[in-house]
Amino acid sequence: MRISDFGGENAVIKLIGERYGAEVGGSLVLGIGDDAALLRDTDKLLVVTTDLLVENTHFRMDITEPYLLGWKSAAVNISDIAAMGGKPAYAFISMGLPDVDTTVVEGIYDGLRDVCTAFHCAIAGGDTVGSSLGIVINVTVLGEVEPELAAKRSGAKAGDAIIVTNTLGDSRAGLGLLLKHGLDESRGISLFLVERHLKPMPRVNEARAAVRTGKVHSMMDLSDGLSMDITGLCTASGVGARVHADRLPISDDLAGVAESLNADPELLAASGGEDYELLLTCAASDVAMVLTAVPSATVIGEIVDGDAVRLVHSSGEETPMPSSWQHFPD
Amino acid sequence: MRISDFGGENAVIKLIGERYGAEVGGSLVLGIGDDAALLRDTDKLLVVTTDLLVENTHFRMDITEPYLLGWKSAAVNISDIAAMGGKPAYAFISMGLPDVDTTVVEGIYDGLRDVCTAFHCAIAGGDTVGSSLGIVINVTVLGEVEPELAAKRSGAKAGDAIIVTNTLGDSRAGLGLLLKHGLDESRGISLFLVERHLKPMPRVNEARAAVRTGKVHSMMDLSDGLSMDITGLCTASGVGARVHADRLPISDDLAGVAESLNADPELLAASGGEDYELLLTCAASDVAMVLTAVPSATVIGEIVDGDAVRLVHSSGEETPMPSSWQHFPD
Repeated sequence: MRISDFGGENAVIKLIGERYGAEVGGSLVLGIGDDAALLRDTDKLLVVTTDLLVENTHFRMDITEPYLLGWKSAAVNISDIAAMGGKPAYAFISMGLPDVDTTVVEGIYDGLRDVCTAFHCAIAGGDTVGSSLGIVINVTVLGEVEPELAAKRSGAKAGDAIIVTNTLGDSRAGLGLLLKHGLDESRGISLFLVERHLKPMPRVNEARAAVRTGKVHSMMDLSDGLSMDITGLCTASGVGARVHADRLPISDDLAGVAESLNADPELLAASGGEDYELLLTCAASDVAMVLTAVPSATVIGEIVDGDAVRLVHSSGEETPMPSSWQHFPD
Repeated sequence: MRISDFGGENAVIKLIGERYGAEVGGSLVLGIGDDAALLRDTDKLLVVTTDLLVENTHFRMDITEPYLLGWKSAAVNISDIAAMGGKPAYAFISMGLPDVDTTVVEGIYDGLRDVCTAFHCAIAGGDTVGSSLGIVINVTVLGEVEPELAAKRSGAKAGDAIIVTNTLGDSRAGLGLLLKHGLDESRGISLFLVERHLKPMPRVNEARAAVRTGKVHSMMDLSDGLSMDITGLCTASGVGARVHADRLPISDDLAGVAESLNADPELLAASGGEDYELLLTCAASDVAMVLTAVPSATVIGEIVDGDAVRLVHSSGEETPMPSSWQHFPD
């Protein structure tokens, strides 16, 4: 049933509030349905992040599904909270909708709810409006972090080890499959890579474990690609970096499909975006402690003096980091 | 200069952070530039609201200007904070941009900055992305309110007086002029009505004065039009209402242009949207105190038992409230 037949925007807003809205309780004093939500204070720092996704720029409905779109829209924000060392708490969802079938709206919200539930985040408010242009989703997530555990991108020091979680480049490879083969066929080739692109897992638990060591100097999440993100971290910290190409963690699935995508796995890992893994630094002497706390993590290089960010190849040759990815490259 | 020639999204993000970003200080520990902003707690309730505006659904660039679009985008959120009885504190701006001239972006941000500054709200973060669909703006505003002053829409009681601030219907009349005559000519006919539509003034001071009396039973802002909004307030409160058509506050400018728009001033005031005035109720015995605190306010009717929301005409006839406005009606 189309939104217009279902009773319009207000009927959709009512459905969303009833089915997906957070129960009042804990620090949530008032949720969906008034002019604004009310939250009670805690003794932590409040962490606030917001991300906007626009149809045909950040996602294409022919190579995703409403559920996955909803999941990803909240996941990328939860990832930002994790990257500050925080725990997500409340999500505020703005959605602009053409006159689509209401199952599309429910699918998106099912995905939003599931990722929020998985990471203990409640849907506490938002705005649902028409959009003549296509689907637009903005998610704002509020979280909290103990002041002493907050991790910024500006704390890296020369001599720090550079660490990432899990494997890199999978999301870009998954997008490559989707653009070449479409959703159904790509799932048959590698469900893992497709889900790495369409259903990212925020690394909240890994981030919390890392900052609880007290040893993390700087941290951020990998959204624009390692190349651009490590450059951003170095700029914020006033340092340079050397990343070792042969230490970049690469999944078996990525290694398996790279050739069919005419891509070099190390290049995908170094430049591909939307991994939503953690990038962090700590003193070389604390690496063992951090890796014990975050078993999925790998050391990929070291922070150096200066401002050059270089990729060290197995031949010993050093080059600038490759340029980062683009959404839907030509 | 187009965004693409200016250095792309990242150059725009850098400009925004440098020119419009809040200085760290007070409760803002970390602003624009990291994964998320960090705020220190207070002993108040946190008020959170978010609104999404989509080009050609909520605004049209041929009948507004970038500065006014920016102003309105934040103003409607600040109005929501006011409607809870709160004070705005921090704004988070998400913007999806086609490859427009950078003066468009600066104009939008100038407007955002000016309305935020006027109401003591700092721009603390956001997301700036490309958009193949047109301009999309989502603003999230965080504010605070003393727990005992928080005003919900659910507290109206039978016997309460219904009060609104200033005049109603002006925004809808301004839109009528804009659609008929365009921006320049409409300004010549009534700058007041045009600005009531394109540059709404959040009623923060009026709302704070009202809740400080301790006498407000329910409050919301008028965004969808009195007709729909009073119905929402009554539904939330489990009451009905009688609104007196001849008590609706109507500006001289609205009275002057109504005939040329083939519109009845009382009908515009009762149903026109986007007034961003306050709608509130208090006991009949407290009306004098509330009107002293908010001199621009007018009593327009009374809350009654039941669930009927009726418009009482000067003839004594009672009708259902007229149906509310639509964006860009056919």
